[in-house]
Amino acid sequence: MGVLRNLIDQLQTLPGIGPKSAERIGYHIVRQPAQDARVLADAILGAIEGLKSCGVCGHVSESDPCPICADETRDATVLCVVESSRDLEALEATGEFHGRYHVLGGHVAPAEGVGLEDLNLTALLDRVANGEVREVVLATNPTFDGEATASMLARVLGERDITVTRIARGIPSGGEIVHMNAAVLGDALRGRASFE
Amino acid sequence: MGVLRNLIDQLQTLPGIGPKSAERIGYHIVRQPAQDARVLADAILGAIEGLKSCGVCGHVSESDPCPICADETRDATVLCVVESSRDLEALEATGEFHGRYHVLGGHVAPAEGVGLEDLNLTALLDRVANGEVREVVLATNPTFDGEATASMLARVLGERDITVTRIARGIPSGGEIVHMNAAVLGDALRGRASFE
Repeated sequence: MGVLRNLIDQLQTLPGIGPKSAERIGYHIVRQPAQDARVLADAILGAIEGLKSCGVCGHVSESDPCPICADETRDATVLCVVESSRDLEALEATGEFHGRYHVLGGHVAPAEGVGLEDLNLTALLDRVANGEVREVVLATNPTFDGEATASMLARVLGERDITVTRIARGIPSGGEIVHMNAAVLGDALRGRASFE
Repeated sequence: MGVLRNLIDQLQTLPGIGPKSAERIGYHIVRQPAQDARVLADAILGAIEGLKSCGVCGHVSESDPCPICADETRDATVLCVVESSRDLEALEATGEFHGRYHVLGGHVAPAEGVGLEDLNLTALLDRVANGEVREVVLATNPTFDGEATASMLARVLGERDITVTRIARGIPSGGEIVHMNAAVLGDALRGRASFE
């Protein structure tokens, strides 16, 4: 069954899809009406053909510049730096941020030799250099690599005349103290703020 | 982002892919080189165009009859009835079975009104009726619906002059008694065989 094996192998290249899932999905695809499978294939082709990377911030978008960079009502003095477009969408969905974004396209990974220069850094420094930006909010993930990325960015950006902040860490809303690990609780204690 | 949203929605129709996974996979697809995404889309189209259902046993295959049905060296007197092509492949991979298969294409689901007549049953009865088959091995899943399917098949097949068997149930090899539930242990006790 070469064509089915090929499909299953291709599915396995997707993130979070192991051999068993790939097999289940592969058989599902060939068992469902052919029209449904064609809609999926077309969705893949439509997405890669219809999307581009925003030349300003690096966000994946159907237009360049992306709608956020093109929106003149957004505050251009505050720049939120994220690792990925997914992170941008998640933050944007809160409705809490009205500035601009910058998408790094990943994080540094010292162990694998991925440095700041491999990220969308030059464009970030250019944006900062043009003088409009007053604050850069570092919103990398609170992981080992995300923290390393934030530290390195903070060092580079610290040479400029801007404020560098980072998003708060602590106990996630809805979480229970008893279920949090020491790192989370430590962040929560160190980051304590006055009771309002 | 209409085209990306569309891709994510389509991915969510796949089994085991929830909203979060679909989002992760969708972003992965559009961030990877376009050529890789095209290979995936082509694999989907190649699979639906290159596969058919075997007219004899119902197995999904690139040829009709499928290689197993076309293989004259296989024992045509023993027929192993499975729910799906995936089950067939899993059993076949053991190298323990040298007879033929019959793929039902699902199981009965009394709660949803799916009966034996909705499965690949007529072809099974035709194969049994031609007289060559001496034993039918029921290899449906040991689940509620799989068991119901086996019971109903056993009743229908019991009217013919053939032996109806079913695959053994018990403790899975490598499993630990302390981790097995009462149903598994009950099967293991009832199915005990003399120590060799």
